[in-house]
Amino acid sequence: MTRPLVVLSGGLDSTVCMALAAEETGEAPLALTFDYGQRHRTELDRAAGVAGHFRSEHLVVQLDTSAWGGSALTDASIDVPVAGSTDGIPATYVPARNSIFLAVALGVAEARKLDAVWIGVNAIDYSGYPDCRPEFIEAFRGVAATGQKRGVDGDPIAIRTPLIGCTKEQIVRLGVEQGAPLQLTWSCYRGGDRPCGTCDACDLRARGFAAAGVDDPALA
Amino acid sequence: MTRPLVVLSGGLDSTVCMALAAEETGEAPLALTFDYGQRHRTELDRAAGVAGHFRSEHLVVQLDTSAWGGSALTDASIDVPVAGSTDGIPATYVPARNSIFLAVALGVAEARKLDAVWIGVNAIDYSGYPDCRPEFIEAFRGVAATGQKRGVDGDPIAIRTPLIGCTKEQIVRLGVEQGAPLQLTWSCYRGGDRPCGTCDACDLRARGFAAAGVDDPALA
Repeated sequence: MTRPLVVLSGGLDSTVCMALAAEETGEAPLALTFDYGQRHRTELDRAAGVAGHFRSEHLVVQLDTSAWGGSALTDASIDVPVAGSTDGIPATYVPARNSIFLAVALGVAEARKLDAVWIGVNAIDYSGYPDCRPEFIEAFRGVAATGQKRGVDGDPIAIRTPLIGCTKEQIVRLGVEQGAPLQLTWSCYRGGDRPCGTCDACDLRARGFAAAGVDDPALA
Repeated sequence: MTRPLVVLSGGLDSTVCMALAAEETGEAPLALTFDYGQRHRTELDRAAGVAGHFRSEHLVVQLDTSAWGGSALTDASIDVPVAGSTDGIPATYVPARNSIFLAVALGVAEARKLDAVWIGVNAIDYSGYPDCRPEFIEAFRGVAATGQKRGVDGDPIAIRTPLIGCTKEQIVRLGVEQGAPLQLTWSCYRGGDRPCGTCDACDLRARGFAAAGVDDPALA
């Protein structure tokens, strides 16, 4: 089994995904992080810390999506909404973000001769982004199978989503069981020194830790 | 009908695709070019020239795939093969290139509220890249339909491939009929001042012009 590639944002879900990938394969994952002009740049430092914890090679890909805007996370002129204040897909949605992340991840995995890309998407306690849902992941598996030398000459690169059906409570519990470095993670969409406590990401995280009966070590 | 987005490399096929998109919509396309560390950097200047010809807005996205290598087009340590010298998928294949291009194009199109992404892939007289084939494009349409706000809230962004079933001869003829600026285009995989005449891209292009009975204006 080859080293896994894990898409690592520096948040709770991707950090638990790192721990699961490391445990299953017995290898330090190749961690792949995107600097896409996100407002919450703290997560880039957190990703480096998490990669260091796992003694992982850490590849940071620059992609300046702010050149075309369209999201509260990359366009300073659009406010980050308070949790629960919007119906449907919120303003923090970044157009085609996970498509871009997975496409690059599949390219890196193929160039490095790796067999699987892991991504910590989940579609239960989530912000309603369409590119976190099982039907999107399944469509991308079709891309891996048809668009790459690996998929034509042999088995396509696998896309692994161990958290896709988990609640946030289950993700916190898994992280604690695995000894994942949850104290190093960052979820808040805003760019301050401390999590804001009011955005969707803070709200989902707080409710997950509360339901699991665990104090959030990142707030200690 | 909104302005079309066209993935523009500065080569023959994408330039003919620009002409077809402009004609069908009556709009100057938004031209999207990728600076992905390609060895044949001349094509970036040619893309700018083609975009200028159409009076198009030209967006150049930087993505340094040379950080992970794996292709003769992005890794100086791998030679560009002579045409016809390899079986199967050649060393110039760039892992996941069209997946990355289409993912970014779908993101830009969504942010800019455009309805269609055009890409000049073709699977007849081509280098055998898996990400130029109809089954790959069909898989990516599934990504557009499931992974984007646009596909959830309404019709997904369309992916248009008017050249996918054309021979190179037909593409040359279409370009001449449309008055596409073929004299501005660049196909050669190598990075010299003049096309090398020996790589796959030069070979396919030369055979297309010869079959159409047209002198290649880029060699004049």
